[in-house]
Amino acid sequence: MSPAIPLTTLQSALGGALCGNGERSVERLAPLDEADAGSLAFIAQPRYEAMLRRSRAGVVMAAPALVGAVLQRPDPPPGGWCAWVFPDPYLAFARLTQWWRQHVAPRPSVVGIHPSAWVHPTARIGAGVSIGPFAVIDEEAVIGDGATIGAHAHVQARAAVGAGTHLGSSVVLGYDCRIGAHGIVHAGTVIGADGFGFAPEPQPDGGRAWVKIEQLGAVRIGDAVEIGANCCIDRGALGDTVLEDGVKLDNLIQIGHNVRVGRHTAMAGCVGVAGSARIGAYCTLGGGAIVLGHLELADHVHISAASVVMRSIRQPGHYSGVFPIDDNRAWEKNAATLRQLHALRERLKALERRTT
Amino acid sequence: MSPAIPLTTLQSALGGALCGNGERSVERLAPLDEADAGSLAFIAQPRYEAMLRRSRAGVVMAAPALVGAVLQRPDPPPGGWCAWVFPDPYLAFARLTQWWRQHVAPRPSVVGIHPSAWVHPTARIGAGVSIGPFAVIDEEAVIGDGATIGAHAHVQARAAVGAGTHLGSSVVLGYDCRIGAHGIVHAGTVIGADGFGFAPEPQPDGGRAWVKIEQLGAVRIGDAVEIGANCCIDRGALGDTVLEDGVKLDNLIQIGHNVRVGRHTAMAGCVGVAGSARIGAYCTLGGGAIVLGHLELADHVHISAASVVMRSIRQPGHYSGVFPIDDNRAWEKNAATLRQLHALRERLKALERRTT
Amino acid sequence: MSPAIPLTTLQSALGGALCGNGERSVERLAPLDEADAGSLAFIAQPRYEAMLRRSRAGVVMAAPALVGAVLQRPDPPPGGWCAWVFPDPYLAFARLTQWWRQHVAPRPSVVGIHPSAWVHPTARIGAGVSIGPFAVIDEEAVIGDGATIGAHAHVQARAAVGAGTHLGSSVVLGYDCRIGAHGIVHAGTVIGADGFGFAPEPQPDGGRAWVKIEQLGAVRIGDAVEIGANCCIDRGALGDTVLEDGVKLDNLIQIGHNVRVGRHTAMAGCVGVAGSARIGAYCTLGGGAIVLGHLELADHVHISAASVVMRSIRQPGHYSGVFPIDDNRAWEKNAATLRQLHALRERLKALERRTT
Repeated sequence: MSPAIPLTTLQSALGGALCGNGERSVERLAPLDEADAGSLAFIAQPRYEAMLRRSRAGVVMAAPALVGAVLQRPDPPPGGWCAWVFPDPYLAFARLTQWWRQHVAPRPSVVGIHPSAWVHPTARIGAGVSIGPFAVIDEEAVIGDGATIGAHAHVQARAAVGAGTHLGSSVVLGYDCRIGAHGIVHAGTVIGADGFGFAPEPQPDGGRAWVKIEQLGAVRIGDAVEIGANCCIDRGALGDTVLEDGVKLDNLIQIGHNVRVGRHTAMAGCVGVAGSARIGAYCTLGGGAIVLGHLELADHVHISAASVVMRSIRQPGHYSGVFPIDDNRAWEKNAATLRQLHALRERLKALERRTT
Repeated sequence: MSPAIPLTTLQSALGGALCGNGERSVERLAPLDEADAGSLAFIAQPRYEAMLRRSRAGVVMAAPALVGAVLQRPDPPPGGWCAWVFPDPYLAFARLTQWWRQHVAPRPSVVGIHPSAWVHPTARIGAGVSIGPFAVIDEEAVIGDGATIGAHAHVQARAAVGAGTHLGSSVVLGYDCRIGAHGIVHAGTVIGADGFGFAPEPQPDGGRAWVKIEQLGAVRIGDAVEIGANCCIDRGALGDTVLEDGVKLDNLIQIGHNVRVGRHTAMAGCVGVAGSARIGAYCTLGGGAIVLGHLELADHVHISAASVVMRSIRQPGHYSGVFPIDDNRAWEKNAATLRQLHALRERLKALERRTT
Repeated sequence: MSPAIPLTTLQSALGGALCGNGERSVERLAPLDEADAGSLAFIAQPRYEAMLRRSRAGVVMAAPALVGAVLQRPDPPPGGWCAWVFPDPYLAFARLTQWWRQHVAPRPSVVGIHPSAWVHPTARIGAGVSIGPFAVIDEEAVIGDGATIGAHAHVQARAAVGAGTHLGSSVVLGYDCRIGAHGIVHAGTVIGADGFGFAPEPQPDGGRAWVKIEQLGAVRIGDAVEIGANCCIDRGALGDTVLEDGVKLDNLIQIGHNVRVGRHTAMAGCVGVAGSARIGAYCTLGGGAIVLGHLELADHVHISAASVVMRSIRQPGHYSGVFPIDDNRAWEKNAATLRQLHALRERLKALERRTT
């Protein structure tokens, strides 16, 4: 059973202009190619115009330039098509999903403190907090107003969770670590495990054992940060590991000790950032990218997926470094030749000298 | 204390033909090079024949062509060697391990619902279900007959677990997500965290903040799917993320929102598949491979370990793209030259023109 | 409020020689560039001498050659600078952090068995053990003296934890698996999930389904092993997966079934080691490196970050294989040319023949 939300209700909440049949109702949000007359879809880029022309979406969020394309589609449903017009329809669609989440498809949630949760008497719990089954809140932890703590989550001693922040199931927020307001941490993420620090100690057989350097710092995370599932954000060795406001991390990301990530930087899944790297604001790192330790990335640096940053990058821009995929036989030949590349260059040089 | 299972018992259960001493008993399963007279081993490929000839395994599962090699080994134990013959001995060995698991080395398991588990009164629990300590089953969740739910697992609201499916310790099955029958999900895996979706919003300083796109879809997983430990399978943005029947995923794998993985496709550890990629049936992805978003892979595509798929692949086949490893000094030279490769090609072209 | 530890107290515990003002007190440990007169810092490598000269650290751990540089800094604080001299100041600093952790900044910890933990009556619990809230200790598990088990951890049937070993929150130690003494396993790590083993079974449509090979081995981990957060160490197929004494693993690392890792080998974050690989002693693997299955690495092999080991390495040394990062436009040209590299070599050869 779908809801049927009058489009005018949505417009009252979110603005924009309605062209065409503004009396339509919206039963669901859908991509252009799966939408029907009861669906609302969006077109964010002109290159999807061909898909738009075939779409059966009753309502389409679109930029002014595409209103005609929305309304002139053949075979309109009873009452006709509607274009809901915004200067930036993708941003408007993001806001619509938030309204939809809140009013139509709310996340299921515990209300109040579940009786099975274990909360230390010295913890300070704000107003309107939800704490899931079997969650653990250790001594002197601070949970801000309206925060929600998932089942099996563990907020350790003296850790602090900002107002309205959500920790998913089984999240660990380590002792002394803190996350700001209106953040989201998805299930299984570990914030504040020890950084990877050891001093080598020579062994009689010529090898070296590793002596642990206790990690005495913590993790500080700003406001409006979202962190995916099963990530690791290590505590600092002496100072802290820092994620600034608005940082967004996808799943399975490793952030080493004493890393600093600038505001509104985003990283896709499986990225690894080694210790003490400093990443600027407004950067993006593609999935599986690796940043080596102690490097610096300027603001507005964009790293392609699976690229390895081996030196500091001081200039904004787009950087890549990935071996191109090929059929295996071709790759084998090229990869074998690559191992002689420097020698080939020398041969080419010699040839150039000889033929000049 | 090992069991001693008469080989005839095994043959009754699993078929195949016994050549040589069919009266042997089997105390343990072992690799060829660690086996003794009480062991059963297998040889799956003729290239291990040298290892077979040195093996002390009392019983060897083998294809017909290798029966002679099994039986003619020197220094037979009392009663002599035995070959247990199958057209596909590796497949037969897989079935034997299943019989062994069931009859000789059963997994330890909770029986029934552990008193510490927390089950919402509206959840529907099938017959013969086991639920471990501190597991949480939220409202309207459905647990199929004979399913087992590990300690600290969290089956969220309206999620569904098929008959006979096993969720390991601390697994999270998100709200509205479902997994079919006879599946296995190993510990720590998170199914149904939010996909990574944000719309950029310009900031006064020239940068962009990220506005969350609520992820309104779910995850649908077919029958006989196995998922390793600490994986992440994100919920879809509008539609669902889908793993078809028989898919096998190793550990620490990231599957982005709205990805579709075709039936019987297998992925080794640390693979990352970005959002909206569509991967065909019967594919294999080697460990650490990355597939970028919105790409399509045909059926029967095989990607080598650590290769990065940057374009759709429409033809079945084997594809690779990895920088060959070398001693560091050689690599440094070749890598430095690689950064001038296009210029070298231009120089070669010029030289060719000059010398023609 | 900082503590103020007399330097003489530290010297009594840790040795070394004091030059300059040995009457100083230490309020905090800090890096050279963030230190003030109340801070203790260290200099491990002569290349940081310029940073040392600007540092305001009241006490600096240093090698004998740098004592002058420590003491002759301008503008000394009241009483003057102090150099705390060791032949290996980095190692001494590591030991100091351990002293500091123990005496000044102890980790918060549960004392005794938390009333909410669930311990099977047949488990054997040593003296001085701590078990956190909602931890599960299954039948016949063995917890050594002084071990600590975090909240939501799950020690499965017949698993064994050595004396003094710490398992973090939500760690899973699988049935029959064991870890030695004085180890640390950080939160979310799964030890003993099934290895990834399947036999292909032909399907009518020309594809292959996968038949599970039950993983009948376990995991054996030596003494003084540290494993980061959200790692996966799979159980063996027949024999065991083994980590020898002193191995150190960072976060999000995948160790496949039947892998053997030699003593004191260290791996940085996001490394993947495929099944049955054998890695020697005293090796290091950089972050994101991949080792394919069934390979062997000799002792003292060092693999650069993000490199892929595709063949066995029999000689100690330093090995690399990573595509160098470049600005995207340059990379695109070079990567495109790389796909013709073998052909370029043939053209170069032809040219050489022609011009000789």
